[in-house]
Amino acid sequence: MARWDPNARQRLERAALELFVRQGYDRTTVAEIAERAGLAKSTFFRHFADKREVLSGGDALTRLLTGAVAAAPPGAGPRQAVEAALAAVGAQAFTAERHETVRERQQVVAANPELTERELLKREALAAALTAALRERGVPEPTAVLAAVLGLLALRAALARWTARPGQDFTALALAELTALCEAAAAL
Amino acid sequence: MARWDPNARQRLERAALELFVRQGYDRTTVAEIAERAGLAKSTFFRHFADKREVLSGGDALTRLLTGAVAAAPPGAGPRQAVEAALAAVGAQAFTAERHETVRERQQVVAANPELTERELLKREALAAALTAALRERGVPEPTAVLAAVLGLLALRAALARWTARPGQDFTALALAELTALCEAAAAL
Repeated sequence: MARWDPNARQRLERAALELFVRQGYDRTTVAEIAERAGLAKSTFFRHFADKREVLSGGDALTRLLTGAVAAAPPGAGPRQAVEAALAAVGAQAFTAERHETVRERQQVVAANPELTERELLKREALAAALTAALRERGVPEPTAVLAAVLGLLALRAALARWTARPGQDFTALALAELTALCEAAAAL
Repeated sequence: MARWDPNARQRLERAALELFVRQGYDRTTVAEIAERAGLAKSTFFRHFADKREVLSGGDALTRLLTGAVAAAPPGAGPRQAVEAALAAVGAQAFTAERHETVRERQQVVAANPELTERELLKREALAAALTAALRERGVPEPTAVLAAVLGLLALRAALARWTARPGQDFTALALAELTALCEAAAAL
């Protein structure tokens, strides 16, 4: 087995998800995950701190969202920056090819209180990171925190719809949710 | 010591907070809290499941907020219902007499990662409860979730300002925060 395997991370994530879906998160060990991926247990721990980490996506979502906000054109307002972030997620994370994986991951998290709790805590950290990215663009308070919160509400609502049925475009769903939230906010 | 003490709960909360501030949350035992309150350890466990619970306020905040939303006049819109909830918190929880207690509680929570985590999870539950209370009034989606989220953002922002300096009116701060958030949302 090669010391350096560029696909190790993905293989471990895939193997873990398959085992979690089949036999449950609690009954799956790190050793089993590594074995199923055809890798050593030590390789698992080079990529993830523990079993819970294997489902976190290495905070890829945070990097995607904050990176897209930072990369939005200088003239883009906070709403446009958030729209760019949602579009980046649709283009790179919640794609047609990843639909089944994302759906299975959601099921595993929902079935396990420990993972659900972790997800809620990550959601708070994500909101803070997105707010910070908007502030970096010079967006003042309370608009920065508001745009971040509405963006993440739109993301969650769109994700629930998107995972429920294959063949939908995540970005379109998310932008429609954001529009609905902004309209509801303006009418409040 | 009387078997039934109507002030036992408050005395235990007060004693716990004093000990947490003075010697730290981790180094304080339930036995010490009970002793300082002049009550038996068994009395502590009639009121609280564990040491962490003594700081939770028995979800009083959730009851206050959802109760006020339910009690708002039938003609009140979602924003007015949330304003009523913030006013109820200002009148009953974040009062001048409780300023020092609330401030100390915030400090203890902020200094302890375990308590901070618990607080974040409770925040999610609070948002869900407030959204449900608004839905009960017939507020449609996504307005219900939005009004709840904006109300809790206003509450958090106002609480930070209010605890920073005594002598301020919590309700006035919270309503001003809510107005600022709604204006920012309308301009997004």
